[in-house]
Amino acid sequence: MSKLIATKDNWTFLVKDPDKDVHTNFGLIKAEDIKKAKAGEIVKSNKGIEFTVFDADFIDFYHRIKRGPQIIPRKDIGLIIAEAGLNKNSVVIESGSGSGGLGCFLAKICKKVYSYEIREDFYNIAKKNVEYLGIKNLSLKNRDAKEGFSEKNADTVILDLPDPWELIEAAKKSLKPGGFLISYSPTIPQVMDFVNTLDESFAYLKTSEIIEREWEVKERKVRPRSQAIGHSGFITFARKL
Amino acid sequence: MSKLIATKDNWTFLVKDPDKDVHTNFGLIKAEDIKKAKAGEIVKSNKGIEFTVFDADFIDFYHRIKRGPQIIPRKDIGLIIAEAGLNKNSVVIESGSGSGGLGCFLAKICKKVYSYEIREDFYNIAKKNVEYLGIKNLSLKNRDAKEGFSEKNADTVILDLPDPWELIEAAKKSLKPGGFLISYSPTIPQVMDFVNTLDESFAYLKTSEIIEREWEVKERKVRPRSQAIGHSGFITFARKL
Amino acid sequence: MSKLIATKDNWTFLVKDPDKDVHTNFGLIKAEDIKKAKAGEIVKSNKGIEFTVFDADFIDFYHRIKRGPQIIPRKDIGLIIAEAGLNKNSVVIESGSGSGGLGCFLAKICKKVYSYEIREDFYNIAKKNVEYLGIKNLSLKNRDAKEGFSEKNADTVILDLPDPWELIEAAKKSLKPGGFLISYSPTIPQVMDFVNTLDESFAYLKTSEIIEREWEVKERKVRPRSQAIGHSGFITFARKL
Amino acid sequence: MSKLIATKDNWTFLVKDPDKDVHTNFGLIKAEDIKKAKAGEIVKSNKGIEFTVFDADFIDFYHRIKRGPQIIPRKDIGLIIAEAGLNKNSVVIESGSGSGGLGCFLAKICKKVYSYEIREDFYNIAKKNVEYLGIKNLSLKNRDAKEGFSEKNADTVILDLPDPWELIEAAKKSLKPGGFLISYSPTIPQVMDFVNTLDESFAYLKTSEIIEREWEVKERKVRPRSQAIGHSGFITFARKL
Repeated sequence: MSKLIATKDNWTFLVKDPDKDVHTNFGLIKAEDIKKAKAGEIVKSNKGIEFTVFDADFIDFYHRIKRGPQIIPRKDIGLIIAEAGLNKNSVVIESGSGSGGLGCFLAKICKKVYSYEIREDFYNIAKKNVEYLGIKNLSLKNRDAKEGFSEKNADTVILDLPDPWELIEAAKKSLKPGGFLISYSPTIPQVMDFVNTLDESFAYLKTSEIIEREWEVKERKVRPRSQAIGHSGFITFARKL
Repeated sequence: MSKLIATKDNWTFLVKDPDKDVHTNFGLIKAEDIKKAKAGEIVKSNKGIEFTVFDADFIDFYHRIKRGPQIIPRKDIGLIIAEAGLNKNSVVIESGSGSGGLGCFLAKICKKVYSYEIREDFYNIAKKNVEYLGIKNLSLKNRDAKEGFSEKNADTVILDLPDPWELIEAAKKSLKPGGFLISYSPTIPQVMDFVNTLDESFAYLKTSEIIEREWEVKERKVRPRSQAIGHSGFITFARKL
Repeated sequence: MSKLIATKDNWTFLVKDPDKDVHTNFGLIKAEDIKKAKAGEIVKSNKGIEFTVFDADFIDFYHRIKRGPQIIPRKDIGLIIAEAGLNKNSVVIESGSGSGGLGCFLAKICKKVYSYEIREDFYNIAKKNVEYLGIKNLSLKNRDAKEGFSEKNADTVILDLPDPWELIEAAKKSLKPGGFLISYSPTIPQVMDFVNTLDESFAYLKTSEIIEREWEVKERKVRPRSQAIGHSGFITFARKL
Repeated sequence: MSKLIATKDNWTFLVKDPDKDVHTNFGLIKAEDIKKAKAGEIVKSNKGIEFTVFDADFIDFYHRIKRGPQIIPRKDIGLIIAEAGLNKNSVVIESGSGSGGLGCFLAKICKKVYSYEIREDFYNIAKKNVEYLGIKNLSLKNRDAKEGFSEKNADTVILDLPDPWELIEAAKKSLKPGGFLISYSPTIPQVMDFVNTLDESFAYLKTSEIIEREWEVKERKVRPRSQAIGHSGFITFARKL
């Protein structure tokens, strides 16, 4: 189990090697100080800055995964989980894996995740992230999903690739009746082509985008932040009949 | 296990009693037809409308829970899960239970949820919903959380009540170092009072609101829906040091 | 000049006929009381509710124009004015007139507005509104704009009709070099077809949508309103080269 | 009258001195070429890039005004005009002038604008901008508005300063009955203090924020822009009774 050290302003640093000092822009923290500290105790850098030591959590490791292809923002991962009702019993298929961010996040929640990625370079990034996060219930496959998914009766199939309509047939064969087909696309023409390709085997539920508005809250300076993420992707939900 | 029947336009009806016919605005569907149908098979109403039969999922039951006090919308539940990295190992405390919607949703994902509710009428609604959803790992307590939570070392404490700042001390005692304190409030003065009451034991992370924008996608009619939910609540995240 | 009477909660009533009593849901206000009152003075209804009397302004009449086809919301009219820099010297052509709302608003700001409307029923509604608002510098034409605009060298051409791309050629002939071509459409496929039909005679500037978020501000109840307008239209700006 | 030269991608350059060549990142354009060109004609840079020549419009100069203190974005100027129904007959008072952006924009639309600015450095910037734009109907005053406005019976008073509630009394004395009091503030506590200070002489209308969402529209790349302005200010409208 790795330790994390955090300043009061929430600058956090993962202690990768317990035998090495940690160098930060707030000064150097000695390895032996961190080793001795129990969770919740304070250590000081050589610049006198205080850090709280605690055991790193899944989310701390998740923030540090390797990023190759862009990862779906957490606000959007949240909607996927919440709309499809993903839970400990869910079996999920996704394509493509990309950097593996979504797949790993869901594997921590669901029973099993199968993840297909056609590109070997992305597959290798995802593989490293799965190992880094110590995830055991995610099966990564360096295969073209257009040839079909091997699994049957999945609760949810999630598509995050440029031409999701090409995978509707494959999804249909691998989803249980009532299962969710979810597609994530940055542009409207992709959404249109996907929705228009859905045939009578699917009930179209909805397409949404999630705008997260962050606020500054500091004494009287209470206002939405000036800079914002304008857009990530549209999320389309359908259900297999 | 209950069955669900769904039209192609995603009007769904839960079959509460397998021995009773189902009456819908699309006509009557006979109990014996539904009984005979396997998942994915079609039954017809006496008006000739086709319904697909399948096994109801958690999310189908969730949509049908009893609503007393307002339930946190799923877009917001999603952000809570995604920001705190809630997963199969998480132990969560929440107060108040309200209708139990958030607690039940999290119980399907997390290891254990403890939920405090001071009002007996709400407690009773939440209790019914927990039973209805068949959830076993949610412990409901009809108690005033201001007297303190009995649990220690929780991963996350979630506050959804009018004066969340009153519970910061209780949360501090029950959170593990590095645990998340999350507060959900509809108004800005509540957010301000909560954030300003956070002391040095917490690193303030952020306050966000989630705007879900639903789109119509039907042939050339591709546009955000005219009517929208303008606001539900602000979600504040802090981390115990 | 008509008088307006307003409650403290900003319920306003236009005094259409100075010789008739005004009936409101806050009671009846006598014609003679209103006649005697100077601007800023108070009159009372027979239910004891106080009304301030003042001279009705353009915006008060504007709120009361006849609505046939949907009027562009003011938030969007605002962006059109602000992006194109419309002012006292501007000559504007628009098609279609619709209810005449946009045209009348701009006529109060610009030098001259020419407004084309193919449908006679809409033309008649717009005509009544122009008269009602006492506007003299708006020339309404019950003509198909696809046959071309008669005017040359306009500063701005505004299109608000289902197939705006059909009018790009006409706009090109009637705009001065550097003039703005603005199109207002509710759907994305319309925006796409319009932008893709713009040829080398136009520099494409931008497409925007305006989301107005109204807030409640009442003691501690300070929050965005629960119900909101989710969408009106996309506004595309181009400039003739 | 100055000339403007514009590329097909809408990169525009103002020709400040007709006797000097124009240097751009698209190459050098000769003064004599520009002089000879009529509006709408093409000139070429020494790199072979084509520019259309036309007469600069108000909005072209406006984009080039000197920026000291932050200028209200045009989306917000638009809402102010559209909500208050500002027009050729309107007399407006504003404080503070800031860089003079809002005042100049309104002066091009309204009959008369009086603008108060306490800081001499801002006053000087605003003065330069008024001269640069050739505006004659804006009266700039380097005075503290808290001592009161000299004008009476104004149609609209606009406040854009840190403590707008301090000017409510002054606004009350200078507004006509039915006139609009508008306040622009970046933070919610400012909005709260302003609205709570409004007394019975005002009917509170509303507080809004304007979110402008820009879209990319290029072949199939049709999507909201990734980067966005998250927030500028809240605009509060009240009406004098």
